[in-house]
Amino acid sequence: MKKICILLALLLTVGLAYSQNDNAAIAEDFKPSVLNQPGQEYPQVNSQGYARFRITAPYADSVKVSLGLGGRGGTRLKKVTDSIWMGTTEGPLDEGFHYYNVNVDGGKFNDPGTLHFYGSIRWESGIEIPAKDQDFYALKNVPHGEVRQLLFPSPSTGTTRRAFIYTPPGYDNASKKRYPVLYLQHGWGEDETAWSNQGRANLIMDNLIASGRTEPFLIVMTYGMTNQVRFGKLREFKIDTFQTVLTEELIPYVDEHYRTVAKSSHRAMAGLSMGGMETHTITLNKPDLFAYYALLSGGVYTPEEIKDPSKVKLIFLSCGSRERPENIQKATDTLKTAGFKAVSYVSPNTGHEFQTWRRSLYELAPLLFK
Amino acid sequence: MKKICILLALLLTVGLAYSQNDNAAIAEDFKPSVLNQPGQEYPQVNSQGYARFRITAPYADSVKVSLGLGGRGGTRLKKVTDSIWMGTTEGPLDEGFHYYNVNVDGGKFNDPGTLHFYGSIRWESGIEIPAKDQDFYALKNVPHGEVRQLLFPSPSTGTTRRAFIYTPPGYDNASKKRYPVLYLQHGWGEDETAWSNQGRANLIMDNLIASGRTEPFLIVMTYGMTNQVRFGKLREFKIDTFQTVLTEELIPYVDEHYRTVAKSSHRAMAGLSMGGMETHTITLNKPDLFAYYALLSGGVYTPEEIKDPSKVKLIFLSCGSRERPENIQKATDTLKTAGFKAVSYVSPNTGHEFQTWRRSLYELAPLLFK
Repeated sequence: MKKICILLALLLTVGLAYSQNDNAAIAEDFKPSVLNQPGQEYPQVNSQGYARFRITAPYADSVKVSLGLGGRGGTRLKKVTDSIWMGTTEGPLDEGFHYYNVNVDGGKFNDPGTLHFYGSIRWESGIEIPAKDQDFYALKNVPHGEVRQLLFPSPSTGTTRRAFIYTPPGYDNASKKRYPVLYLQHGWGEDETAWSNQGRANLIMDNLIASGRTEPFLIVMTYGMTNQVRFGKLREFKIDTFQTVLTEELIPYVDEHYRTVAKSSHRAMAGLSMGGMETHTITLNKPDLFAYYALLSGGVYTPEEIKDPSKVKLIFLSCGSRERPENIQKATDTLKTAGFKAVSYVSPNTGHEFQTWRRSLYELAPLLFK
Repeated sequence: MKKICILLALLLTVGLAYSQNDNAAIAEDFKPSVLNQPGQEYPQVNSQGYARFRITAPYADSVKVSLGLGGRGGTRLKKVTDSIWMGTTEGPLDEGFHYYNVNVDGGKFNDPGTLHFYGSIRWESGIEIPAKDQDFYALKNVPHGEVRQLLFPSPSTGTTRRAFIYTPPGYDNASKKRYPVLYLQHGWGEDETAWSNQGRANLIMDNLIASGRTEPFLIVMTYGMTNQVRFGKLREFKIDTFQTVLTEELIPYVDEHYRTVAKSSHRAMAGLSMGGMETHTITLNKPDLFAYYALLSGGVYTPEEIKDPSKVKLIFLSCGSRERPENIQKATDTLKTAGFKAVSYVSPNTGHEFQTWRRSLYELAPLLFK
């Protein structure tokens, strides 16, 4: 029955897509995506969320873009001049950020028009579909914090490792003030650059702080070592190596080098997708380290898993409306009934993508450290 | 006569390259370049400085890599299986960092194996040829400073602009200490990411400071707005817009938000290539702002240009040995004769490339703020 429903849903989507593939219906107000490289005119997006691509490859036989309607194999470009291939998605894309790549004669490359974003264990092309609520992650004329690259020693792995830390506006001048910290994890295929580049976590925080909706805190982002395992084999992932790096190396380094409040009451952990799986495991393994837990499209907690409920100040569960919001909502209700402070958030009209997680961070930040 | 000499030099180079294109002479000790994306086996480099490329493009008719011997049109790859193209440069490349791109059936793409670096007004592929002196820019187990992304308001351009600032190890904890500042510019086609990504300026500083060879200082890197002009038309570039951003907006912002010594005696400006041209113009236009001037493959100063020699504490001129070192050396001699403290540096066996500029920074840093 479930399979039939999925098939039905797919057919309906396809039908919808085709009905929108009427040229008269596509608004010709395409503009360059804001994630294009400087001066690049393509890819473009229109007011309805369609994306249009242009690739130069004079002697290619076939050019395809991986982005298009789910499961439909992306968008096949057509040769429009001696050297240029163009194509438009068959339907509108969800609002927000999307990864993609370009297939030229069977080889996978990036679109030379766009900036690069680490996802799927490779630097991919990225495009931004303007969202109705894009103001909350826009670069505005407000005081800005910094995103700092720090290099910390990791004796357990024998390496020097990289993390990024968001410090809020005024951090340097407030030389006595101490801050809470959110440890924020990316998903499978991504790395420590994802939350700033794709997620715009720093701009979300700058805007939240400027509007007075949240008190300033630090955000630490490092590589969750999630990409050692193939996508289909995620259950084989062992948390131990990363848990040691995070809890025995990075957290002590951050508490030593930054003005943090080094207590669980002022420390949160959150993660998206596989980073949520890591958050789930590590918060349960180390109940004395974190008091705020957040899983963004990353599963749920059950009351039975939590040994000492008095140590948990907040559980935040979120996902996109195109994922399985009923799971999130049901788990939140169960946690509430068991006496936890639990909050759920469902991002409207988005799936397992960064727009869901940007919105989740925006909803989560004001709830933290209260 | 000059043309004949160039032709002769070219022919000699070609001859040399061909003589080295004997397979017996190529050491089969190729290893992945350190600038590859995680897990990527290609491109590779060998102990002699040859680079080997592998590109997957099953249905392509032609795959070329732009990197090869100067003016020879790069390296043409050959199809070695149903889907894979491979090729090795005809001769060894200079030590250090090189930009390149991949031509697939006439279209310009990046090598999916490498990280990306902004040069030639596009994000390019990059490869690193191990250098005999690579230790000075290696990531070592020493205290590390930070590279911070800051966003500063620019009323003159009506934008919020990005800069990176290197803060040395211990900056945060030394809450009373104030630091000198080097303003360090990239070249044409590049941007504010170049000195950290390609140049490894932060690691060069970390290592210099750890060895006690230089006192800690801040480095500020922002976009020099150099890419508004086509490469052949550089003389049409107007400095005014960038000079205003740098001297009236960024410098005051840095002096307000960081613990600097806000005096010309503790402020230096340096730039590579077109960034050297900017440095030359701005230091002469604003003699009260900077006391240390450095042009890296970026021209020379003459004594006549400098209105008040007493304000200049150091002039540093450098280039690669494959550029025109005699110009640098002659200008330095003239400056010394005129009473200036002038220092020249010529990077051995390099041209107009980042290895020259990494070495130049390494030579320059210990001379600054003395």
